[in-house]
Amino acid sequence: MNPLQISMDDVKKAREVLSGVARKTPANLGLGRVLQNKGIYLKYENFQLTGSFKIRGAMNKLNSLTEEERARGVIAASAGNHAQGVAFGASKLGIQSTIVMPMAAPLIKVTATKAYGADVILHGRYFDEAFQEAKRLADEKGYVFIHPYQDPYVIAGQGTIGHEIFEALPQMKSVVIPIGGGGLISGIAYVLKNLNPQIKIYGVVSDQTPGMMEMKTGEHHVQPQFISTIADGIAVKNPSKEMFETYINKYVDDIVAVNDNEIAQAIVYCMEVEKVITEGSGAAGLAAVLNGKLDLPDPSLVLLCGGNIDLNTVSSVIEAGLRKQGRLTRISVIVNDLPGTLAEITNIFANERANVLDVIHDRVSPELGLRQTRIDFLLETMSLEHVANIKKTLREEKIWILEK
Amino acid sequence: MNPLQISMDDVKKAREVLSGVARKTPANLGLGRVLQNKGIYLKYENFQLTGSFKIRGAMNKLNSLTEEERARGVIAASAGNHAQGVAFGASKLGIQSTIVMPMAAPLIKVTATKAYGADVILHGRYFDEAFQEAKRLADEKGYVFIHPYQDPYVIAGQGTIGHEIFEALPQMKSVVIPIGGGGLISGIAYVLKNLNPQIKIYGVVSDQTPGMMEMKTGEHHVQPQFISTIADGIAVKNPSKEMFETYINKYVDDIVAVNDNEIAQAIVYCMEVEKVITEGSGAAGLAAVLNGKLDLPDPSLVLLCGGNIDLNTVSSVIEAGLRKQGRLTRISVIVNDLPGTLAEITNIFANERANVLDVIHDRVSPELGLRQTRIDFLLETMSLEHVANIKKTLREEKIWILEK
Repeated sequence: MNPLQISMDDVKKAREVLSGVARKTPANLGLGRVLQNKGIYLKYENFQLTGSFKIRGAMNKLNSLTEEERARGVIAASAGNHAQGVAFGASKLGIQSTIVMPMAAPLIKVTATKAYGADVILHGRYFDEAFQEAKRLADEKGYVFIHPYQDPYVIAGQGTIGHEIFEALPQMKSVVIPIGGGGLISGIAYVLKNLNPQIKIYGVVSDQTPGMMEMKTGEHHVQPQFISTIADGIAVKNPSKEMFETYINKYVDDIVAVNDNEIAQAIVYCMEVEKVITEGSGAAGLAAVLNGKLDLPDPSLVLLCGGNIDLNTVSSVIEAGLRKQGRLTRISVIVNDLPGTLAEITNIFANERANVLDVIHDRVSPELGLRQTRIDFLLETMSLEHVANIKKTLREEKIWILEK
Repeated sequence: MNPLQISMDDVKKAREVLSGVARKTPANLGLGRVLQNKGIYLKYENFQLTGSFKIRGAMNKLNSLTEEERARGVIAASAGNHAQGVAFGASKLGIQSTIVMPMAAPLIKVTATKAYGADVILHGRYFDEAFQEAKRLADEKGYVFIHPYQDPYVIAGQGTIGHEIFEALPQMKSVVIPIGGGGLISGIAYVLKNLNPQIKIYGVVSDQTPGMMEMKTGEHHVQPQFISTIADGIAVKNPSKEMFETYINKYVDDIVAVNDNEIAQAIVYCMEVEKVITEGSGAAGLAAVLNGKLDLPDPSLVLLCGGNIDLNTVSSVIEAGLRKQGRLTRISVIVNDLPGTLAEITNIFANERANVLDVIHDRVSPELGLRQTRIDFLLETMSLEHVANIKKTLREEKIWILEK
């Protein structure tokens, strides 16, 4: 008997456990024409309590503990959403919780986790070290370890999303779900394939952590040595073979990968068109759809699974997302350091109706002659075509543009 | 007979007109503990088609036009939401629309209005000039002028929000609504006071355009000569006495004002805690609540009336909002320009666990001696208390901090 295997009855029980604790999150046809024309619905787990779906699995697991286990207290390792789910759920049940977070965890997530009532220990540079420390403390202190995904109660908890989708929107022909450890997609796919064997389930990974996609497709990619993705919530370097064999291989139809620029574009799309905040991993499914990586039947549903993005990083995400659409552009030129030069260039921008947001002069870089200045302009532009027109005019005026 | 006066029957007809065109927007208890503890609900008109409530009034007005009027085409002046509402509604009904926008209107709003099918004319530096031009064109070309608020069909259209609130949440004891021209609050207040005479209706204006509050309270403030607020959607300099006499004075219980920093804080709160995007005017009601300007009964509802914020301004809003909470700080120091000085200061920041986001050196400002450098640091901090501690340590180390 596979200890990871859940039943539909387990999910039904999870629904009862979560009733009145987690929210039934809304789902509707997207606001923007891109989604409306394709019949693409969104389900908003970013509006879930604690800002992500994680509370479902965490709460279902915590509720399954015996009185003796509850008295020992629980421990988890997480840089983000699982931490908040466990801390929130444990407080509700009166269980003492300890969360080990990597030293680099954003202040805001540390503060939120403490505010939900957990003891927070900062340990290690990377998640793996925090994870090992949590396991060590569980052994030493007798805490119950709450795994973020490889646990049947956690999987059944996330599976309650599948029920909500089927009850509210039984006509959906496919569902797109981000994949990190795989607990979320496993639970939802298991439930939906049981309720409607015709439905297609698509998974989306970060291209920096494509392990689960490689197991599914048999392809192999070179993994970067240092993983640095805005989709930190799904950045699982070595996904579990047990999760793959028990669920992903059986119930998921295809898996595709998205890169950070595509995710940034999806976050910006959500902010600008759908008026919602998603974190990197939360927007990964939509990133695959907006970039045409999945040919979805009409109607389909994309799960926005979390909204806990660090606001200090939102500005750079906005810049990356706008730049990808040609709505924000950096143009660097090298000119002779003479009166009138800046006016000449800014007149060109004014004639082209580009808005200058920032100007930076550099007179000391080694590639510059003594009478030369490099000027970097940050411009608000309308489209990639608009940017090309501006550069063409600059070249016609014999202005030397630095290209990367 | 007052031509502005609507009846409950007018609102009922507006509901029929809007059925299947505008969305019934969701409303629920806020996600964050601040709102949950006070029993404060949010209604999300930022999820309305076109990103704001304006489509309700515009569509109801457009639908009331005769065949002859429809054939003439319509015109409106707007820098934002009314433009999109009219353009969208006119396209749905097959009416030709022209929108006059000020030259300074954000590119994104111009593009969106054109995409909804309107002809866009850029005219004038300020809204008033665009408004006059639209009136002039209406006379010259025979277009029907669609007023943004002073029109019974527009007011009845916005009033449908009152019905939705009462049907979904009849237990609400008060409702908080931003005030620009007053069409939104007039429609909602009229409906809710008719359905439940006990309910309290509170209005919120920008402190830069307090006209409607002054009429209500009899107080007088000095208005700034140049109005520059992030709540551009409610920046109506000379509000209408007819709107005041017909609705605001009768149905609104109190009006308070909020400033731009308070609004920025509310926008950031929405992004970080509630996971939704609001524009400045859309967040004004919540700004009043978060800053304790209204003593609300439990339960109460705050209307988030729009989400069309320009993403290029979001970064500065985030900075203002985080700074108000002490989570982002600029500290400027003047030091002797010697090796080791920067290391000394950054060690202090490291010991205090403040994260350095940016460092800018200035060696040429007139207030500096020849061997002196001014250094501006942008720091990620935890709280106002944390900032005070850092400054205290710097002073103990004899580092000269520039204060504003």
